[in-house]
Amino acid sequence: MPSEFDLIRRHFQRPAPDGRVVLGVGDDAALLAERGDRCLAVSSDTLLAGVHFLPEADPERLGRKALAVNLSDLAAMGARPLAFSLALSLPAPDEDWLTRFAAGLHAMAAEYDVPLIGGDTVRGPLALSLHILGERPCGGAGRRGDAQPGDDLYLSGTVGDAALGLELLRGRWQAPAPLRRHCLDRLETPTPRVALGQAVLPWVHALIDCSDGLAQDLGHVLAASGTGATVDLTALPLSTAGRRWRVEGGDWETLLAGGDDYELLLTAPPGRRAVLAELADACGVPLTRIGRLRAEPGLDWLDADGRPLALAAAGFDHFRGAA
Amino acid sequence: MPSEFDLIRRHFQRPAPDGRVVLGVGDDAALLAERGDRCLAVSSDTLLAGVHFLPEADPERLGRKALAVNLSDLAAMGARPLAFSLALSLPAPDEDWLTRFAAGLHAMAAEYDVPLIGGDTVRGPLALSLHILGERPCGGAGRRGDAQPGDDLYLSGTVGDAALGLELLRGRWQAPAPLRRHCLDRLETPTPRVALGQAVLPWVHALIDCSDGLAQDLGHVLAASGTGATVDLTALPLSTAGRRWRVEGGDWETLLAGGDDYELLLTAPPGRRAVLAELADACGVPLTRIGRLRAEPGLDWLDADGRPLALAAAGFDHFRGAA
Repeated sequence: MPSEFDLIRRHFQRPAPDGRVVLGVGDDAALLAERGDRCLAVSSDTLLAGVHFLPEADPERLGRKALAVNLSDLAAMGARPLAFSLALSLPAPDEDWLTRFAAGLHAMAAEYDVPLIGGDTVRGPLALSLHILGERPCGGAGRRGDAQPGDDLYLSGTVGDAALGLELLRGRWQAPAPLRRHCLDRLETPTPRVALGQAVLPWVHALIDCSDGLAQDLGHVLAASGTGATVDLTALPLSTAGRRWRVEGGDWETLLAGGDDYELLLTAPPGRRAVLAELADACGVPLTRIGRLRAEPGLDWLDADGRPLALAAAGFDHFRGAA
Repeated sequence: MPSEFDLIRRHFQRPAPDGRVVLGVGDDAALLAERGDRCLAVSSDTLLAGVHFLPEADPERLGRKALAVNLSDLAAMGARPLAFSLALSLPAPDEDWLTRFAAGLHAMAAEYDVPLIGGDTVRGPLALSLHILGERPCGGAGRRGDAQPGDDLYLSGTVGDAALGLELLRGRWQAPAPLRRHCLDRLETPTPRVALGQAVLPWVHALIDCSDGLAQDLGHVLAASGTGATVDLTALPLSTAGRRWRVEGGDWETLLAGGDDYELLLTAPPGRRAVLAELADACGVPLTRIGRLRAEPGLDWLDADGRPLALAAAGFDHFRGAA
């Protein structure tokens, strides 16, 4: 069965015929020339009941998440958010649900200073499709294909907490209340790394957000840039919950293939370690060096003994499910 | 039950906090200041299987229509199309369906010179949410609320053909093959009035496209501008199919309340009749004067004897169905 990415490539990726299109289909956002060196960054993300969230999900948290995942796409382009619109499909005009959903959406919009400027409401299966606009320089790097051999590989925040939230919801894992709360918050109200994305843009080569799982999103970077990578598993930033999962014998696959982290994954030459550390500090977001890019294709996950670990998982694909 | 428009107003219409937002939620498109007096026009429209089209609809025609209805929103703002993105929800990655859908979408995109710049594919109920960007002057009229008493009221093309297409599909009406073909084409592959919208923008007061039916869309203009109107039913531009419908005793309601025409409805002072006629000629689109705006609220449909007709229908509302 073809993957989501094959489908997009095959049917919707065409050479852009318009001189204003600086970057078309296939990255976190498209870039459209605006004025001088400024480009408009344009992105869409859809959340579907039963696929991206449970139909009974708390509507206020869902409102926050819907905007968060779209802001994360802009963060992955180093773009400043400008405005967004909402296409909402609802089975029925449930006043209470709408009031709470709008409260979450507007609260998030106010926090990130990004106004809702339009939309469309239809009656249908519960689904939210957001379209977001941002602004950034047209030039510079930050695309998936911009990674270079020899680059350091960095990850913001911690990895796998949203996946553990899903394990908890599905009753496949138990954890004390504070860890449970942490993992569910990471799953249901992720924090888009908007300030960090803009701050690091001038210093990075590749920049992407981890929405489909570290393994798969790193795979996109390697495929697009024609590079390989070695990741040091012992260097991966784990939360208290993640460390507990590992101590209890939980597998790496769950953490590496789980989506919904919305952390930034980036590559940069070794000479930029100091400036990146400073910028991450200024943004108040941990940024951890987790590996290195290389010319030779492939992706090795090295364990504590420096031996490559065989991983079964390759991340989430919307048409294949978790592989 | 609250209508779609009540819902949008109540939950999503907030005063825009950002100086760049020239026009926010509630019109055909939002306007975002770009450079000088140029504004970005931003709009979204969703098509849902079972609501906006039959699940078995021809995918190529559906690809054309999805883009057409979004181009029509830009036409209704007098904006030049720049680019669009697609959020696609599909039950399964059906190669044949996708190939044909993409063919229709790309053909339409090429005709209107508007590149596809991004998108998102998810597995779910068949739904298409498009997001389109255009450009127009920030100033000037063209909003729903810009109509003034004494304005002439104009409609492009013909009215009700898409509604008759639906009657034909539902087996509630029969018509000879050429008329059937015409009505189904109007329903399934509407022609957005992109050139006409841009041409008339400097000369109109209110400008809107008829997606929800002439009665309802005119109602939006009257409500937003605090005006009333008299429409001369004998002046309404009918196609051969529409005339046949009337001759066979078909009601006005079907023609006036039926959506999906995607014609432009506009108002302008009487002094602009000559220039509007010239522009419509240049665009090759019929533009018919169908009535007049007035200060006194209300909407009268006058029959051949000049008597107001009582109409049962008020157009299509996504949460109430055809009223």
